[in-house]
Amino acid sequence: MKNLVVQKYGGSSVSDQTSIEKVAERVIASARAGKKVVVVVSAMGKSTDSLIELAKKINPDPSEREMDMLVSTGEQVSSSLLAMAIHKRGLEALSFTGPQVGIITDTYHTQAKILKIEAKRIKKQLKKGKIVIVAGFQGVSTALEITTLGRGGSDLSAVALAVSLEAKICEIYTDVEGIYTADPRKVKDAKKLPFITFDEMLELASSGAQVMHTRAIEVAKKFNLGLHVRSSFSKKEGTIIMEKPPLIEEAIVRGVTLTEDEAKITICDVPDRPGIAAFVFDKLAKSGVNIDMIVQNVSRKKMTDISFTAGAKNIKKTITKTKEVAKEIGAGNVISNKNIAKISVVGIGMRSHSGVAARCFSALAKNKINIDMISTSEISISCLVKKESGLKALKILHKEFELGQKKKRGKK
Amino acid sequence: MKNLVVQKYGGSSVSDQTSIEKVAERVIASARAGKKVVVVVSAMGKSTDSLIELAKKINPDPSEREMDMLVSTGEQVSSSLLAMAIHKRGLEALSFTGPQVGIITDTYHTQAKILKIEAKRIKKQLKKGKIVIVAGFQGVSTALEITTLGRGGSDLSAVALAVSLEAKICEIYTDVEGIYTADPRKVKDAKKLPFITFDEMLELASSGAQVMHTRAIEVAKKFNLGLHVRSSFSKKEGTIIMEKPPLIEEAIVRGVTLTEDEAKITICDVPDRPGIAAFVFDKLAKSGVNIDMIVQNVSRKKMTDISFTAGAKNIKKTITKTKEVAKEIGAGNVISNKNIAKISVVGIGMRSHSGVAARCFSALAKNKINIDMISTSEISISCLVKKESGLKALKILHKEFELGQKKKRGKK
Repeated sequence: MKNLVVQKYGGSSVSDQTSIEKVAERVIASARAGKKVVVVVSAMGKSTDSLIELAKKINPDPSEREMDMLVSTGEQVSSSLLAMAIHKRGLEALSFTGPQVGIITDTYHTQAKILKIEAKRIKKQLKKGKIVIVAGFQGVSTALEITTLGRGGSDLSAVALAVSLEAKICEIYTDVEGIYTADPRKVKDAKKLPFITFDEMLELASSGAQVMHTRAIEVAKKFNLGLHVRSSFSKKEGTIIMEKPPLIEEAIVRGVTLTEDEAKITICDVPDRPGIAAFVFDKLAKSGVNIDMIVQNVSRKKMTDISFTAGAKNIKKTITKTKEVAKEIGAGNVISNKNIAKISVVGIGMRSHSGVAARCFSALAKNKINIDMISTSEISISCLVKKESGLKALKILHKEFELGQKKKRGKK
Repeated sequence: MKNLVVQKYGGSSVSDQTSIEKVAERVIASARAGKKVVVVVSAMGKSTDSLIELAKKINPDPSEREMDMLVSTGEQVSSSLLAMAIHKRGLEALSFTGPQVGIITDTYHTQAKILKIEAKRIKKQLKKGKIVIVAGFQGVSTALEITTLGRGGSDLSAVALAVSLEAKICEIYTDVEGIYTADPRKVKDAKKLPFITFDEMLELASSGAQVMHTRAIEVAKKFNLGLHVRSSFSKKEGTIIMEKPPLIEEAIVRGVTLTEDEAKITICDVPDRPGIAAFVFDKLAKSGVNIDMIVQNVSRKKMTDISFTAGAKNIKKTITKTKEVAKEIGAGNVISNKNIAKISVVGIGMRSHSGVAARCFSALAKNKINIDMISTSEISISCLVKKESGLKALKILHKEFELGQKKKRGKK
């Protein structure tokens, strides 16, 4: 659809009366500028958390179907309130639940995947000149049940709607001004990036930049939908995520991230048989353990150590499961370490520049920061260091790759 | 459906974790006793009021469609929480929204009427032995919009579902133990009635007994569905509302009620033309004024006075509208009086007993209570008195018709 923009506002953007009114004004500004607007909203502030808390009091292990019935109300509330705020300012708007606008999902409650969108109802209202507001995070399953899309679900609703409605761009409004070369709360001269590629964003997101969830970025990449991550509290341009940024920038590295909520687990003396790693991680995945980095060293004496990182929050469960798997394959001890931080250096420029890894390691070495574990992809390098060195390492690498404000290139 | 009971729990019965758990236990008791159970729940306590308050802050005159989107979430929350509480106790239950179970309404938002119920989905789950929980107060319109049923809406959902599923009885759980001969907070020896007819209940409901809304009673009467009004906080039997109570009771009068939230309005010197009263009340109804009693005296000199009572809450609007109508028809002054109370005496026995009205008036006269306005139906007599005499008049009439505990007849 021509001249269409899909805007997504997160929970912090609709946390109370005042912020809902601000969102209304921003939506109206787009509409008055001649755009057709589809708005996707999250639940108000922490309202979903309150509902979950109440549910857990009533049943510590609540049914996932009923959790979806419960928490999907949060987005319905914020959607209707936003419609009212827009009406008060004289424009026409209609709020809809996910099921009402045909967001069809599979039947996996609390983490459903969108199968298709039957957007007829939205299109009809857009053609009539109405602003369409959609409750994010939710859909209706093929079994006609209310489902939710899991973490980052509202981003996913917005991206899927934008793809389905053939919008040129999807605007993701959040409480930060865009994507930075590093977390600006941690690195003072961190620079906002005007553009970033999908692949870089995916690496940044999985390396601790919490701005958007990877699932939504993956879908946007698949359909080559531009994303504009920007602040709902400022008029400044944010960061555009796209396949090929319009200006060829020299930068090799686009950002560095620090993740402090992971733990390292090592399975010692793993018999070195073909397929053993696959077996281990398949078992762990099936028991719900979310693995991040994986490192397996060259084997000596037909034995090897396999190390990986996983969320520190559920570390007890992860260790228990890992010990079970270790026993099953005849491996040795399972050792864990929570005193770690992960530093990741991300940039599509790495592909064509050799020596980035070496530069990274030597910068850390020069500053006497010991690297515990390394894992690399085509466009990222991640190193584990001691937790107390994490922030220092972040600053060192941010400086090493000249990412700070003072050395900025291109337009801001 | 055989062996089926529909139970409705009001907002005060599901106001918090503890009360939801108590409802779960009560529902389970019915299921364990071999019944198929359909539960209809209202929103938790005052949660609907909080949503409305927030909406009015954002838009003092919110769209009715959006209000329905907003407030319908309340029942969805309590339904899913009740399902979780039942699961925890080991039984299978599923919560549904009104739209999900095919409660089809007309398109009048905030006061929709149920057109039909497509109960296939409920029947399927009941046959599988599951407890079905339905969010009360809501449905889906023929235009596929979420609608709510207005005041007393959850009662209506329950009654309509019971009719549609051919239940023998619909249990209405509330915070009182049944229907009394008078409000027990006002008249100490008020007696709980074991049975009452639909017509008596309708008169009582419209005369200030706030236990059930008249719309639900009307539907139950139309389909001859027995209603059992009882307390969710006690195991005692409540009051059964039905067409023909099983025991023929001698009682002439079944109850007395006191209404203190009305005002009296008089249009003076109305030209006595045919159809003038119809014109007046049609105009007032169309402007949203809810009229209760109407009295028109015999005309003198081709002029008459028309008096009526209406809710004291919106009295300013009512007076404004009335003055407009008065001007239009060439009538005189409009006088209003908020210092009134309405006493109603209700009983199906009145039909066959003459002299009830006379006995009522003379009891009041004997106690020097002046009657300001009288209106009667086949089974009720209502008198307006000064507000300060209201409670006294209630007690006098309760005693006059021997409704108290000490003189009780039949089984309790």
